[in-house]
Amino acid sequence: MQIASAIQWIIPIAGIAAVLFAMYLARDVLSRDPGTQAMQDVAGTIYEGAVAFIRRQYLTIALLALVVAVVVAVVISLVEGPAVADTDVSGVALGLRTGIAFLVGAACSMASGIIGMFISVKANVRTAAAARSSLVTAVQVAMRGGAVSGFLVVALSLLGVWSMFVLFGGLDKPSQAPFLIVGYGFGASFVALFAQLGGGIYTKAADVGSDLVGKVEKGIPEDDPRNAAVIADLVGDNVGDCAGRGADLFESTAAENIGAMILGVAVYGIAVAAGWPNPESWIFFPLVVRGFGLLATIVSIFFVRGREDEDPMNMLNRGYWVTTALSAVGLLIVTNVMMQTGTTSGANGIPAWLWFFGCGLVGLATSVAFVYITQYYTAGAHRPVRDIAEASKTGPATNIIAGTAVGFETTGLTALSIGAALLLSHFLGQQAHLLDANGNDVGGIFGTAVATMGMLMTTAYILAMDTFGPITDNAGGIAEFAKAEGGAREITDRLDAVGNTTKALTKGYAIASASLAAFLLFNAYIDKVNLILGRQIAAGATNVHLMTAVNVDEVPVFAAGLIGAMLTFFFSSLAIRAVGKAAGAIIVEVRRQFREMPGIMEYTQRPDYARVVDITTRAALREMIAPGVVAIATPIIVGVTLGYEAAAGLLIVGTISGVMLATVLNNGGGAWDNAKKYIESGQLKDDAGNVLGKKTDAHAAAVVGDTVGDPFKDTAGPSLHVLVKLLATLTLVLAPLFIR
Amino acid sequence: MQIASAIQWIIPIAGIAAVLFAMYLARDVLSRDPGTQAMQDVAGTIYEGAVAFIRRQYLTIALLALVVAVVVAVVISLVEGPAVADTDVSGVALGLRTGIAFLVGAACSMASGIIGMFISVKANVRTAAAARSSLVTAVQVAMRGGAVSGFLVVALSLLGVWSMFVLFGGLDKPSQAPFLIVGYGFGASFVALFAQLGGGIYTKAADVGSDLVGKVEKGIPEDDPRNAAVIADLVGDNVGDCAGRGADLFESTAAENIGAMILGVAVYGIAVAAGWPNPESWIFFPLVVRGFGLLATIVSIFFVRGREDEDPMNMLNRGYWVTTALSAVGLLIVTNVMMQTGTTSGANGIPAWLWFFGCGLVGLATSVAFVYITQYYTAGAHRPVRDIAEASKTGPATNIIAGTAVGFETTGLTALSIGAALLLSHFLGQQAHLLDANGNDVGGIFGTAVATMGMLMTTAYILAMDTFGPITDNAGGIAEFAKAEGGAREITDRLDAVGNTTKALTKGYAIASASLAAFLLFNAYIDKVNLILGRQIAAGATNVHLMTAVNVDEVPVFAAGLIGAMLTFFFSSLAIRAVGKAAGAIIVEVRRQFREMPGIMEYTQRPDYARVVDITTRAALREMIAPGVVAIATPIIVGVTLGYEAAAGLLIVGTISGVMLATVLNNGGGAWDNAKKYIESGQLKDDAGNVLGKKTDAHAAAVVGDTVGDPFKDTAGPSLHVLVKLLATLTLVLAPLFIR
Repeated sequence: MQIASAIQWIIPIAGIAAVLFAMYLARDVLSRDPGTQAMQDVAGTIYEGAVAFIRRQYLTIALLALVVAVVVAVVISLVEGPAVADTDVSGVALGLRTGIAFLVGAACSMASGIIGMFISVKANVRTAAAARSSLVTAVQVAMRGGAVSGFLVVALSLLGVWSMFVLFGGLDKPSQAPFLIVGYGFGASFVALFAQLGGGIYTKAADVGSDLVGKVEKGIPEDDPRNAAVIADLVGDNVGDCAGRGADLFESTAAENIGAMILGVAVYGIAVAAGWPNPESWIFFPLVVRGFGLLATIVSIFFVRGREDEDPMNMLNRGYWVTTALSAVGLLIVTNVMMQTGTTSGANGIPAWLWFFGCGLVGLATSVAFVYITQYYTAGAHRPVRDIAEASKTGPATNIIAGTAVGFETTGLTALSIGAALLLSHFLGQQAHLLDANGNDVGGIFGTAVATMGMLMTTAYILAMDTFGPITDNAGGIAEFAKAEGGAREITDRLDAVGNTTKALTKGYAIASASLAAFLLFNAYIDKVNLILGRQIAAGATNVHLMTAVNVDEVPVFAAGLIGAMLTFFFSSLAIRAVGKAAGAIIVEVRRQFREMPGIMEYTQRPDYARVVDITTRAALREMIAPGVVAIATPIIVGVTLGYEAAAGLLIVGTISGVMLATVLNNGGGAWDNAKKYIESGQLKDDAGNVLGKKTDAHAAAVVGDTVGDPFKDTAGPSLHVLVKLLATLTLVLAPLFIR
Repeated sequence: MQIASAIQWIIPIAGIAAVLFAMYLARDVLSRDPGTQAMQDVAGTIYEGAVAFIRRQYLTIALLALVVAVVVAVVISLVEGPAVADTDVSGVALGLRTGIAFLVGAACSMASGIIGMFISVKANVRTAAAARSSLVTAVQVAMRGGAVSGFLVVALSLLGVWSMFVLFGGLDKPSQAPFLIVGYGFGASFVALFAQLGGGIYTKAADVGSDLVGKVEKGIPEDDPRNAAVIADLVGDNVGDCAGRGADLFESTAAENIGAMILGVAVYGIAVAAGWPNPESWIFFPLVVRGFGLLATIVSIFFVRGREDEDPMNMLNRGYWVTTALSAVGLLIVTNVMMQTGTTSGANGIPAWLWFFGCGLVGLATSVAFVYITQYYTAGAHRPVRDIAEASKTGPATNIIAGTAVGFETTGLTALSIGAALLLSHFLGQQAHLLDANGNDVGGIFGTAVATMGMLMTTAYILAMDTFGPITDNAGGIAEFAKAEGGAREITDRLDAVGNTTKALTKGYAIASASLAAFLLFNAYIDKVNLILGRQIAAGATNVHLMTAVNVDEVPVFAAGLIGAMLTFFFSSLAIRAVGKAAGAIIVEVRRQFREMPGIMEYTQRPDYARVVDITTRAALREMIAPGVVAIATPIIVGVTLGYEAAAGLLIVGTISGVMLATVLNNGGGAWDNAKKYIESGQLKDDAGNVLGKKTDAHAAAVVGDTVGDPFKDTAGPSLHVLVKLLATLTLVLAPLFIR
């Protein structure tokens, strides 16, 4: 019992340890050889561009967040005010706390994004420098640079939720506090939405714009210094893949922590009533699990090593498996220590904690499943990518048709895996036999929360692998740009290919975690609605009933569900068109420079990189507004006009639709990308056995598919992850507004 | 009161009148000039190919249907057997009746498809012949040929449901019979699934295969007689657009008739209890409305006329508006006569029938809204198509990106229109103040049924406009192929452009009607499940509760919803890949003929058209099996393993997702098609004002988009309409299997 109480200290300890370890890794990366002057020059230019964009983007986001925080605080104060007379927190205090939590969530998300990206744009040139002599060192530099982001995101999310919880009285009244900190998740979602949209639009507009003028119109290679958009393209890798995905997963972990804690409140009630030891353990459990996940990841970073002639993917996988194994051990310890139910036992005499340990393992297994499913669909060795490459022989149209078919197909295993994880963890949780005062089972739904926590124990490692992607991509660009000596470009190309895979994996992982997080938050939403309705009933309101179901067969709920599904398509349409518009602005500028500065093609004039970076920055910030506003306004309008049950319908159907569409866009895009790489690596042959490589019609067709996939997989798809969670946190915070 | 009873005779009278009118139109079309011998030769070849395919396809479908009918009859007998002891229909009798209804539904659907297509392949050459001298006559021949399909589909569906209803004792026990005829809807869905899949795969495989070898590889024009796949392509227009869409809308009308009648049963109960006159009117109402719709359409066919220099679209629109206006009048009469509630009145003292008349008007307005929304998104005069054409200037990749963005965007107005129609008709229906014995409102949901019936009053006319499409498309092919004299090709080109618009409109209409039909059937499903559960409770079962909600927040229902959404993407993937595989077989054969018969290019050898038709037929029939099986097996597996509430979750979320995805595929495909036509008509200009027409890079890019859109809009999209309704009828029939 002492242990169950003491183990909670792992939360701040692991959080601070992870921050310190991130600082150690950052120092280690910064102390490495930054390469030749030419390399440092390019890296410096990328650095300046990235910082300029992030500064303006995050300033915009911070201003928007400030406005929203005030509005949320006022609205909650006014709406919740009269209804909370019988709790010890007044409406105004609740509004203030929600607004403060929102701002802290937003600030933590921004801080982890900014610092992570800062290190990433320093790690790229050092990776390129290391690649001149050693593959293993290059892998380590890139991975450590990426791990800075990974640790900061998870640790700041954990520390933020924990300090909010403690500040808002969670140690005294553990069952009330989780509802007070939902604003933190909303703040994180809000930042993530604009960080991902802005970054995603930036990176793909620069990519498409630079390719269309440079490669297609002028016939110069990728990353050629004569292309005025090349620096913007390299900046884009950082602001999109690195800062964007960091904000995405920051939001996931924050939302899941809060959602799981709210579900833990129900078990807390059972534990208090039954007199189980340390009832608050059920609420703290998610945070402790997360702490152990961080510790496991710290250890595993040291296992990223190997031989010079080894496949770099193996080195990363080694660390991943260490993280997974240590996480399983951590899970065993935490469930055993924290989930004591006195003498009560679950089904077959097996204690409750062991059933929940099973739920956690289901989550870890789901994480592994997604890593391999994504590999199957997006790596060149398997049927889907080969099919697309084969279809390229008959031109771009058949390439697009085949890629679309593959993208659609990937929903199959995705939905089955998520569905199986939910059903299995729900079943295992039910075996723990946790019944509330009315005899309703609580263990099943709590089991899904434990599975979610299990899945997210590896987040920091997955995110490190993800950020490995843009760092190595940048390293390749720098090596090409600065004509680095040795086999640098060959090594960075190998790392880049691995980075493409890890970026795809992370998206699969992010989708699965988004759907599980959203599912937790639906239940938190219903709990919160019933809290408010219960107060109204207690205050003597007649004709008010508790919400027992989200009945999609009712007309308003069905209509709202239809609108939720529509929102995911419409939002994606806006995101995709935003890339097109921003790319258009870049194309005009790059063409102008080629036309008005004829010396560029002869290397006698230096293109004005900064101007393109500036144009891209302004275009991306302008274009991120429309989809962002639609994403926020739609659920509010539906909730206010059609009510709280309709809002839940929008939320749930929108989540399902968003998860499926994001899967299609991410995996379709990844498969197109790798079909092009498959052809470039000389693996496609015609009927006579001749290799169909670069400069063939098949390759040209594959380039079309790759270009189409770019805004799908790097703008719309990842933005949908964020949208799914935003819908959940937004409805959770604004629930009082939807109750009439 | 006498009138309310007598008006029911309009059902057989209008049904038979429509069949007789279809025969008159068929005779009229067949009596027209079939053109020159050359034209008749081509038409004869198309006719043979179409008949050969339809014979083999419908033989396959008939065999499958026979097997399924037996299985359904046996399963229902066994499962429903013990549970129906307290009704006067035994389980075996119920099984037999369901099996028979299934077969009758299947047979009626096949009959209307076969006869309609038979006339369509006779009307094509007569349209081409008429086009040599008169635009107006050509429009009339094509429209009358199309109307044969339109009338037969709606009339046979109406007569079939009515005779089943009468045969199964509907006149004596009106409240029991609707549940006995749900097999009819399932039979129609079953045929529609395979008719649409097989026809859709056939038409697009032939189209893609013929274009890739003919236009791309050999550089010969479309419909060139040297292309061995040209006849298969022309056959495809008939078997896909004509037979497929006919089966689709046959299923819609049958499913909506039955779903609306089942909802009418609830009002019947109220009417009997309250002693209102002619309570059975509430059950017959949907069929009577349909009858009036048929009569309105018969009149309107004579309004398809105009001046030789008029836009042919105007002539068709004239008839459409006459149908709509007459339908509104018919609706006023029917609601007034059939919806008498004695002295009871609705809100504000306005009688119930007037509120329901409002619901019907909402349905008619929705029909009009979809006609115009589809035009906006897929016709060349508006922003979406122009955007795609503009994007073609920078190549195929930007064309595809722009088209995808437009396709996604079209979900916006679609979802809002369907949602608004449901919410508004539900609200108006509630004002009628129909409360059941427990005080629950029944009028709201019945109002949505009335709106659906209102929307579908114009089905016969819409379907005639749809079949106008393949007839004029064929007429153009015949004119080109047989080098028809006069301005025949110019006139058929104008008609073809109008036909593209009407085909797109019909798809929009079919989507809206599919979603409304599905919504009726959800409610019928819940009614049926509760009927079975009620019997179990009455028989003394404990721990059984009536189904009050489809709660998507429960884990099994959520997981099933995820699988439902996934099914729509996965099914589309299979359908799209089927086109690719079948097209591959055609490409190989056409290339072989060009290679082994060198005289073809010099017109000295005649290509072996029949062989390509035969290969396409076999490929289409082979490839339709996998998606068909997935569509049928998935809901059964989910229902049996996860139960009846999960099956409802799959059904509802699958419907929403299917409707959205079909919208994307249909409208995206239509917009790509018309962006190509926009460029071909010389409306796209470069910055200097020069026209970018055929043979430019922009046109080549637009051709890629058009080819990508083909399997989207003509195979996967329309098959999704059918899938949505199949899910509904299948779960409705097999509901007993899902109840444990």
